[in-house]
Amino acid sequence: MSGMFAGVDLGGTKIACALADAGGRIVRKETIPTQSHEGPDAVLARMAQLVADLSSGAPLEALGVGVPGLVDLETGTTLFFPNLPTQWRGVPAAATLRGRLGCPVLLMNDCRVATLGELHFGLGRGVRDMVLFMLGTGIGGGLVIDGKLRLGPLGAAGEIGHQTILPYGPLCGCGNRGCLEALASGPAIAGEGVRLLRGGLAPMLHEIVRGSADLVSPATMGEAARAGDAAVRDAIDRAASYLAIGVANVVTAFHPELVVLGGGVAGLGDLMLETVRRGVKERVGMFPTGGVRVELSALGDRAGIQGAVALAMSGRGGRVAS
Amino acid sequence: MSGMFAGVDLGGTKIACALADAGGRIVRKETIPTQSHEGPDAVLARMAQLVADLSSGAPLEALGVGVPGLVDLETGTTLFFPNLPTQWRGVPAAATLRGRLGCPVLLMNDCRVATLGELHFGLGRGVRDMVLFMLGTGIGGGLVIDGKLRLGPLGAAGEIGHQTILPYGPLCGCGNRGCLEALASGPAIAGEGVRLLRGGLAPMLHEIVRGSADLVSPATMGEAARAGDAAVRDAIDRAASYLAIGVANVVTAFHPELVVLGGGVAGLGDLMLETVRRGVKERVGMFPTGGVRVELSALGDRAGIQGAVALAMSGRGGRVAS
Repeated sequence: MSGMFAGVDLGGTKIACALADAGGRIVRKETIPTQSHEGPDAVLARMAQLVADLSSGAPLEALGVGVPGLVDLETGTTLFFPNLPTQWRGVPAAATLRGRLGCPVLLMNDCRVATLGELHFGLGRGVRDMVLFMLGTGIGGGLVIDGKLRLGPLGAAGEIGHQTILPYGPLCGCGNRGCLEALASGPAIAGEGVRLLRGGLAPMLHEIVRGSADLVSPATMGEAARAGDAAVRDAIDRAASYLAIGVANVVTAFHPELVVLGGGVAGLGDLMLETVRRGVKERVGMFPTGGVRVELSALGDRAGIQGAVALAMSGRGGRVAS
Repeated sequence: MSGMFAGVDLGGTKIACALADAGGRIVRKETIPTQSHEGPDAVLARMAQLVADLSSGAPLEALGVGVPGLVDLETGTTLFFPNLPTQWRGVPAAATLRGRLGCPVLLMNDCRVATLGELHFGLGRGVRDMVLFMLGTGIGGGLVIDGKLRLGPLGAAGEIGHQTILPYGPLCGCGNRGCLEALASGPAIAGEGVRLLRGGLAPMLHEIVRGSADLVSPATMGEAARAGDAAVRDAIDRAASYLAIGVANVVTAFHPELVVLGGGVAGLGDLMLETVRRGVKERVGMFPTGGVRVELSALGDRAGIQGAVALAMSGRGGRVAS
């Protein structure tokens, strides 16, 4: 065998793939558009081709794939991908990829996979208990307990974006109301930014996006806040305060040593981090928190493929062979 | 050695003690008032005497003690007992009891101890992942993950009564606002009952407590609700809806197979249980919950001493030797 592993991060708009050596170091990577309208068969075929191209046809030890939803952990069959067409339900994706590539293929929810990335290649190295909040279009995450990724019977443990933060808050994509995802995800923050833009409350943001709501995002809002838009800064603060509640709730329940904030929204950096840290301290201040640290991901947008490589290196259940 | 174990549940008003055989079966028990104003030395002396009396002076394998607060898990020294006088801070309780009784003594937070009780002698038998919500004057709890009680570095994991449910809700004893404890504990429910009593909105309750706010409790409110007080039933429903959010949040984060509701407030029975079950289903309905069961404790008020016996039978960290 070559001693090489591959990792893929399947997203709604793009597929990122990496080839890694026996130590998990990424030696090559490439990204292609998902084009999910082509259907699962075509997408899986292109994904397999991408992996084969990256490895120049050399045999692989294993492939790990992070997917945007839930899969049957035993069989690698897809269950529920909220952001891909419904024909993605019940697709034997692991078996299909295994047939094309001739190596073991492991599938797992992308946020749990990113948690493996943080655990083995990011801030989680040497940490026994940690939580990752992945803040993007949705909010997902993962729990590591006693050094082991918590999956639960269906791989759905770690769905910490669907904690209820406001009992009668806005509708969430999951059907519940007031989920953290409905309050602090990229779309939630951007929606508030558009309100400020249209209401004439964000002059810097207006200049930065040249008046276009299409360009309002956590990134452009962060820029506007730093440039002096107080209302935009307040909107970011409020989202961060909700996030602080979500973090504090997980801390009171299971008391990890480390909480990592990852995903695109974490790119707001200190604009978000300080408010989250302060909020967590206020909410769990009376209890000895044993120095729970709250940090920004060190891997940034590499968490997904780095985690997929970790998954490839692991057995099912996400234990990386050491 | 005698093969006998003892368990003590130290509360703010009473001390319950049990003697158990090698299989953990309780063979004798007794309860005395705590009289915490006498100070820790006198209380610990009476506690040791009670244990010695129950065992007729025969040697014990070990004593387990559930305490209303946090202890140093290494030394058995008390850290923070919110409902006892401050002189209970820093008391070397395990060492003192060990000196008097001549057997190993293990101390642990009472709600974590009750969780051990449910795990080994209640509904938790044969369950790998469960959560106990202890609903009383406060709300505490415990998490069992992969068959092991989760303590965290300070024994504070499982403080699920201090999840924030309403970000700007009522002040909690812990200093935070809108904790589950501030919304669904015995005092929270009773406070709402008194509002209805004084406001003339609860005629049956008025009759049951003969107009006395002192007699308003979850128990008398349950009676009034069953007798037809719609406003009282609504108050119980609302508390149960908040509890459902707390349960749903823990389920989304770590996906246990079983959630047990214990403590005095769980004595409301189906008045509370059905609303909690419905609320959990609504809040996490979109995710496959893999049949998470929500049940009332089978041990009732015995969970505390039965858990203390389990603690005595365990090593530190709460693993009962099997």
